[in-house]
Amino acid sequence: MSEKLTSRAENYSQWYNDLVTQADLAENSAVRGCMVIKPYGYAIWEKMQQDLDRRFKETGHVNAYFPLFIPKSFFSKEANHVEGFAKECAVVTHYRLKQDPNGKGVIVDETAKLEEELIVRPTSETIIWHTYKGWIQSYRDLPLLINQWANVVRWEMRTRLFLRTAEFLWQEGHTAHATAEEAIAETKQMLDVYAAFAEDILAVPVIKGYKTPNERFAGALDTYCIEALMQDGKALQAGTSHFLGQNFAKAFDVKFTSKEGKQEFVWATSWGVSTRLMGALIMSHSDDDGLVLPPRLAPIQVVIVPIYKTDDHLALIDEQVAKIKKTLVAKGISVKYDNRDTQKPGFKFAEHEMKGVPVRIAIGPRDIENGTVEVARRDTKEKATYQVVDLDVKIEHLLESIQQNIYNKALSNREANTFKADSWDEFVDLLDNKPGFIYAHWDGTPETEEKIKEMTKATIRCIPLNNKLEEGKCILTGNPSTQRVLFARAY
Amino acid sequence: MSEKLTSRAENYSQWYNDLVTQADLAENSAVRGCMVIKPYGYAIWEKMQQDLDRRFKETGHVNAYFPLFIPKSFFSKEANHVEGFAKECAVVTHYRLKQDPNGKGVIVDETAKLEEELIVRPTSETIIWHTYKGWIQSYRDLPLLINQWANVVRWEMRTRLFLRTAEFLWQEGHTAHATAEEAIAETKQMLDVYAAFAEDILAVPVIKGYKTPNERFAGALDTYCIEALMQDGKALQAGTSHFLGQNFAKAFDVKFTSKEGKQEFVWATSWGVSTRLMGALIMSHSDDDGLVLPPRLAPIQVVIVPIYKTDDHLALIDEQVAKIKKTLVAKGISVKYDNRDTQKPGFKFAEHEMKGVPVRIAIGPRDIENGTVEVARRDTKEKATYQVVDLDVKIEHLLESIQQNIYNKALSNREANTFKADSWDEFVDLLDNKPGFIYAHWDGTPETEEKIKEMTKATIRCIPLNNKLEEGKCILTGNPSTQRVLFARAY
Repeated sequence: MSEKLTSRAENYSQWYNDLVTQADLAENSAVRGCMVIKPYGYAIWEKMQQDLDRRFKETGHVNAYFPLFIPKSFFSKEANHVEGFAKECAVVTHYRLKQDPNGKGVIVDETAKLEEELIVRPTSETIIWHTYKGWIQSYRDLPLLINQWANVVRWEMRTRLFLRTAEFLWQEGHTAHATAEEAIAETKQMLDVYAAFAEDILAVPVIKGYKTPNERFAGALDTYCIEALMQDGKALQAGTSHFLGQNFAKAFDVKFTSKEGKQEFVWATSWGVSTRLMGALIMSHSDDDGLVLPPRLAPIQVVIVPIYKTDDHLALIDEQVAKIKKTLVAKGISVKYDNRDTQKPGFKFAEHEMKGVPVRIAIGPRDIENGTVEVARRDTKEKATYQVVDLDVKIEHLLESIQQNIYNKALSNREANTFKADSWDEFVDLLDNKPGFIYAHWDGTPETEEKIKEMTKATIRCIPLNNKLEEGKCILTGNPSTQRVLFARAY
Repeated sequence: MSEKLTSRAENYSQWYNDLVTQADLAENSAVRGCMVIKPYGYAIWEKMQQDLDRRFKETGHVNAYFPLFIPKSFFSKEANHVEGFAKECAVVTHYRLKQDPNGKGVIVDETAKLEEELIVRPTSETIIWHTYKGWIQSYRDLPLLINQWANVVRWEMRTRLFLRTAEFLWQEGHTAHATAEEAIAETKQMLDVYAAFAEDILAVPVIKGYKTPNERFAGALDTYCIEALMQDGKALQAGTSHFLGQNFAKAFDVKFTSKEGKQEFVWATSWGVSTRLMGALIMSHSDDDGLVLPPRLAPIQVVIVPIYKTDDHLALIDEQVAKIKKTLVAKGISVKYDNRDTQKPGFKFAEHEMKGVPVRIAIGPRDIENGTVEVARRDTKEKATYQVVDLDVKIEHLLESIQQNIYNKALSNREANTFKADSWDEFVDLLDNKPGFIYAHWDGTPETEEKIKEMTKATIRCIPLNNKLEEGKCILTGNPSTQRVLFARAY
């Protein structure tokens, strides 16, 4: 296992890469830009999936599955969508391999060329709205509240594990409604679902807002988002929810007969989060010793390590651990007894710290005599001696308290790195010397937004919901502005 | 909703297609051979997944995720595997689209051609064993017990919803072991897991056996399978578990240092079931009125339909239903109250029959007076009047009894359609006039097996485990044989 990580101070980016690899979360594969999600990383993703899936179902959604491939021509049907997505895509052109007549393995059979190329889905609006045309005739068929868990492919040039990969896993919700109001309410509802999930489960505080036209999803009338701040002061978009208006219904001719008997185009939303959330999770909480996991996402919440010299001691400890484990498991706590005889306690401690196990319990012969255990928490590194009596209740409370503490720490970090800039110099100085969220005035034009991005690499992350109105002057042009918007450099 | 289905007697194949569509399970998509799994069908698949996933985890497996794409050259590395799989595959050759300069939508950017083509995985042995090379150094790293839930693509020429589609969903287990014995034990264990799942959850009786060399998975030393018999007397392979020997370890150079300090190649297994199980489920139990679902897989186990003329009656029924629903839900039973005012009871009854809801409860004003409900079971179509007292317990028992009855019925059907043939004429006569499983003697040669397949389209489904030894003569060649093997025409 694990050499020492590069420290965050030394090289944040290298720290992240080291951590993802050494905590056994993911690795690069033989295919450029595609990752292998390792069992430990996947177990965390599964916990995210389960919680999100429950929230989707509680809000009335059902799952379905649509094809991996999309006919090329579908991309041309929605003018803005094609601009945004018909770019870096994996294109299937042939459907057969054959033995190389020169005996050098297999080659593509050139006679098996598709009449129309197929695109590996970068997102599924087009194929889904093509399908919805067959499903929607009357207002009685609405709303359609459907979600899909799937893999998608965007041929990114510069990739990073979890944050930006050619193939990634995600969910994409695609809903159809009879009215604009209902679709907008759905868009906002799903933003709230994402925000609650991020804060309650990932322990990542987020700012809810909407994107400027420049930053909208290709084909959307409005894109809502949740934005989080990482430890290095860069922002990360953690989820988006789009109000698509009637754009896709028009592109795929999806109409319904209203209660009044009129033919109308259907209103749409789409919303998604992806394995990118793993990146947000890692970068929000982890430290120079490894991963820090909120207990609600930890595949192993408590690890127990025996400290012993003789087999007699081990036998006593085994007996005590069996009892403790039973009471913890009965509380729904996931527990691992790490009794490997191939590794020493110090090695195990470091490994469990690297993997972010929230609570470590160590038990030695002296503890058996005293009816105690040593409890160490991963988030603060504090150790304490606990009486075994009612240990299950104490650990349950401790896990809750760790969950809360991790969130509070991330929130404090965000607050300490959220600034106001009232001039261009101040803005640039903050970006370079105190990176974080910056609230600043902007004149509301796409040109200014673009210019700021070119000059500083900072983007408008969002216009926060319920933003306070405030007269001011644009930091770049000095033109009048009615509100501050949220800037940051971002992942 | 639903016109009448084609009857099984009239046209079994059309009945199946009608049923899949009308029960809202799946439909063909805009992409040749790829299906859309509709919410109701997907809900059943989710229940299968959950149960299988639990069984995999209980037997020590963990989930992970490997890339969708496999470099073309990987397929040439294992000689038999390439024969079997490097055929009808989706091939990605380019990674970019661009606007057609003639303004006709998008075209493939010919400058964005991949150096090496990527194959959309038809199965993942190659990419996974390439990855395992980095994960396995010592006997301490073994066994690796990993499963993946994923989509795969095989470019089938003739497709049928669920049974044979270009893209399908499945799980593929890929395990690595220090010894052949351990790998063989794993192969058999997973066969047992599949058989228990098929019988206990799908209510489909299966025969466990192993394949002849002709029918083995490409690259396996042994392929074990579970075989089920459909209502039309055709067999369906419902799951396979492969002992891969050291073939993939040798192809990808995966060695480990044994306890004794020797370098040895790793032993492998792989095993999978897919959305094809949906086909097995549908064809095992359903009837001319629609789907018949075993309660353990039914997304809705009980539907309640109010029968009323006046709003006052409905109000009374609503009140009664709320109470009943509460007690059923408390028992973990999934209940839907179908109080749509847009449809009449007869329409609802037909719809719930089509969708295979195991139990229907109807409540009218007279029932309210009498403290009764009318209970109809989907499998036998029997109706009975139940007292509301302890209804939850009665329904719980009824669901168990339906699960058992559906299994028994499928088992009786299999038994009634399982035959012995002692001569060629008898064999051919059975195949044509009493299709089913046929136990017959075979001389053990691939040539005879191939000839029988060519002449009759019947294949050796498996050599059952613990098969009785019995002297006999091959039905085709008359050569001596030591055991009967299991023949059938198959899906």
